[in-house]
Amino acid sequence: MLASLREEVLEANLELVRRGLVLYTFGNASGIDRERGLIAIKPSGVPYENRKPSDMVIVGLDGCIQEGRLRPSSDLATHLILYRAFPQIGGVVHTHSRYATIWAQAGSDIPCFGTTHADYFHGAVPATPPLSADEIETEYEANTGHAIVRRFQGIDPLSMPAVLVAGHAPFTWGESVASAAHTAVVLEEVARMALHTLAVNANASPISQAMLDKHIYRKHGRAAYYGQDKKGES
Amino acid sequence: MLASLREEVLEANLELVRRGLVLYTFGNASGIDRERGLIAIKPSGVPYENRKPSDMVIVGLDGCIQEGRLRPSSDLATHLILYRAFPQIGGVVHTHSRYATIWAQAGSDIPCFGTTHADYFHGAVPATPPLSADEIETEYEANTGHAIVRRFQGIDPLSMPAVLVAGHAPFTWGESVASAAHTAVVLEEVARMALHTLAVNANASPISQAMLDKHIYRKHGRAAYYGQDKKGES
Amino acid sequence: MLASLREEVLEANLELVRRGLVLYTFGNASGIDRERGLIAIKPSGVPYENRKPSDMVIVGLDGCIQEGRLRPSSDLATHLILYRAFPQIGGVVHTHSRYATIWAQAGSDIPCFGTTHADYFHGAVPATPPLSADEIETEYEANTGHAIVRRFQGIDPLSMPAVLVAGHAPFTWGESVASAAHTAVVLEEVARMALHTLAVNANASPISQAMLDKHIYRKHGRAAYYGQDKKGES
Amino acid sequence: MLASLREEVLEANLELVRRGLVLYTFGNASGIDRERGLIAIKPSGVPYENRKPSDMVIVGLDGCIQEGRLRPSSDLATHLILYRAFPQIGGVVHTHSRYATIWAQAGSDIPCFGTTHADYFHGAVPATPPLSADEIETEYEANTGHAIVRRFQGIDPLSMPAVLVAGHAPFTWGESVASAAHTAVVLEEVARMALHTLAVNANASPISQAMLDKHIYRKHGRAAYYGQDKKGES
Repeated sequence: MLASLREEVLEANLELVRRGLVLYTFGNASGIDRERGLIAIKPSGVPYENRKPSDMVIVGLDGCIQEGRLRPSSDLATHLILYRAFPQIGGVVHTHSRYATIWAQAGSDIPCFGTTHADYFHGAVPATPPLSADEIETEYEANTGHAIVRRFQGIDPLSMPAVLVAGHAPFTWGESVASAAHTAVVLEEVARMALHTLAVNANASPISQAMLDKHIYRKHGRAAYYGQDKKGES
Repeated sequence: MLASLREEVLEANLELVRRGLVLYTFGNASGIDRERGLIAIKPSGVPYENRKPSDMVIVGLDGCIQEGRLRPSSDLATHLILYRAFPQIGGVVHTHSRYATIWAQAGSDIPCFGTTHADYFHGAVPATPPLSADEIETEYEANTGHAIVRRFQGIDPLSMPAVLVAGHAPFTWGESVASAAHTAVVLEEVARMALHTLAVNANASPISQAMLDKHIYRKHGRAAYYGQDKKGES
Repeated sequence: MLASLREEVLEANLELVRRGLVLYTFGNASGIDRERGLIAIKPSGVPYENRKPSDMVIVGLDGCIQEGRLRPSSDLATHLILYRAFPQIGGVVHTHSRYATIWAQAGSDIPCFGTTHADYFHGAVPATPPLSADEIETEYEANTGHAIVRRFQGIDPLSMPAVLVAGHAPFTWGESVASAAHTAVVLEEVARMALHTLAVNANASPISQAMLDKHIYRKHGRAAYYGQDKKGES
Repeated sequence: MLASLREEVLEANLELVRRGLVLYTFGNASGIDRERGLIAIKPSGVPYENRKPSDMVIVGLDGCIQEGRLRPSSDLATHLILYRAFPQIGGVVHTHSRYATIWAQAGSDIPCFGTTHADYFHGAVPATPPLSADEIETEYEANTGHAIVRRFQGIDPLSMPAVLVAGHAPFTWGESVASAAHTAVVLEEVARMALHTLAVNANASPISQAMLDKHIYRKHGRAAYYGQDKKGES
């Protein structure tokens, strides 16, 4: 079981590279085995070439390393907070992908300007407020997680599987690590299109609530009719 | 005959992928056999790798599946409305290609700023108005088609083989599905250049009517003199 | 001799494709044998794959076809005007490359914001004014050439080997067709950087005359000291 | 020893090409052997294909060629000034990479809008003022170096391993030529993201001093905890 989790996590990390979301080693993906409470995560700062499933580090929800010769991603503490706060999720991805990072740097939610966005995110993708100096100086990565969780009060993390950490970059998640990586790719495209939508029309309006609801339910949920399965792509 | 239509439709779908117009499965192409009244269309939400002509779904103009094991594209109803309203066309393409989608999200026609545009589109590429909540909630895809057809009152669909659906993305068409795919590629380039033309010069003027007429007739129609055939590229 | 000219012209056309300056068949390159007064030019509207030197069309300076089974580029008449007006040049290239075309569509000279530009173009790259309806309706391609020549009154075409035809796209030239293609590639980069320079700083200043002079003479002319030859890259 | 320095310098030059930072021959990298006071640098204006370590030119800190059949990069004098002024550095890279050059052309420091930036550069990346006509006309390349050194009064070159030369392009450096090339790649990404951050939010704020300090010390210095080594990536 951990063998297949390790493979999924490695594969998700490689998907980020193939899709151009990662420069050098700027990104990490993890997946969780909820029954055992174990997480597989990319090691810190190592190149992606020739990585093997056995290089993934296995840690508990408390952050203690259970297996692995390499140090885990330095963003591990953020992943852990997300797994604890969002029990529905099975995978977490963090990248510095260009356009999602641009919105994070601008400290701005990404408005939902179209159906490409609405197919994945039920409304504007939220940005956190900046961390305080205190939050940065002590347990920085954990506090990043706490800032995300605070921002998601009242938001269902599976209807909104992404966040922009102000002055930093995006995190995405999903039922599996593969789905978190897929969402990271779509978020990058959506972020890029939103930026240029405002360049064409600085007063562009977000799509209507009716459109928003239509698209999220077209692809996801019980009444989904996109794709070959009854329950859509998910 | 349907064998060759299936192949053309598959090939057009693959051309969209090769030209970078498609992320994951966000796009679909169809072609029609006007004599038999049968349409071949991409199945919904399936990856493009290893697709075979036999995977294309055959439907009638009423939308009933005639042949095929897979569910047709969820945008089928929009294609059908276009085939019924525009009897001159033989193929329809829908993508979420980045820059055409940006103009659709901005809800803005693409002005004709140059000859690259004028070689294919006889004037500004029109955007539809947004759909109402009613139109979205019932028969959304068919209503998308109706909104396009209303917007094209008084416009010849072969002189203007593209539309931007507000808050959504473009559709293109042509005498064949190959030509609809080719037009989708050119539309993307034209949309990209128009956006940045406004960045250089917010007051950029569309080209003159004389230039517009010159270029459309240089490539298309009886007096065409571009390319190796008497009738131009078409 | 024409064999090698044909090969150079084909190679220049392929270089435009390899460098991403050409979508489908939107571009053409030609070279001239000044002694014989013969020009080799790409045929009109044909794909680049599997092109052979023998496909290049040979025409005289009067535009009459001397050799070749295919119709020459529809922009031939513009090339001819340039060869007649600028006796120093040995090759002409026309593309719809994205960023140079954007400046042409904006109807705006490209200011010289840096040394990348100054290494090739001694000042702002000039845009022509738009053609009149009369000029468009009769001998459009020749009149495009005349508009360029008028714009270059008092400008040395080898110090400024490029022009933007308003509402259309760029032409470049040089001592050889290879050099005209190289310049087209650099023009595209320079056009792209200039556009975004204005985005960072709407009041960005062109570089000083001293800098302009320094760079053009560093790479070109008798005192050049860039590269391995006494006379620089040219 | 020089054999391995030549190889490192060649490899850094090739890395710039692989990462898309170099058009034609617009860039150069050098490395220094501090014990012997010898520098290996790319030859001027030669293509990168089929380059061998033996093509690198060996010069002393006085600029005299010690070994090599080819003329050294025309920017050698700038490299020499940097090696003399910054004794901590082991390699220098110069490119005309698109987005860093855009900021240089705009004459503008790159504000630190996020952690991708802060991981490498401890604050805004500085731009020099323009050179005077005198500085350009005599010993232009050396004066470029002097302008950089003047701009760095009070700045630690290893905490800020990059500069934008106004109206020209960036230089980067580091403990080794490999690290200087790596920094050039990251600078390009950071420059690109900063430009678009301002497009989303013209009033975007740089990150806080606490964040700036956190990230530079997370990756670099004695307390670094990113990557697999005790001392981070450096």
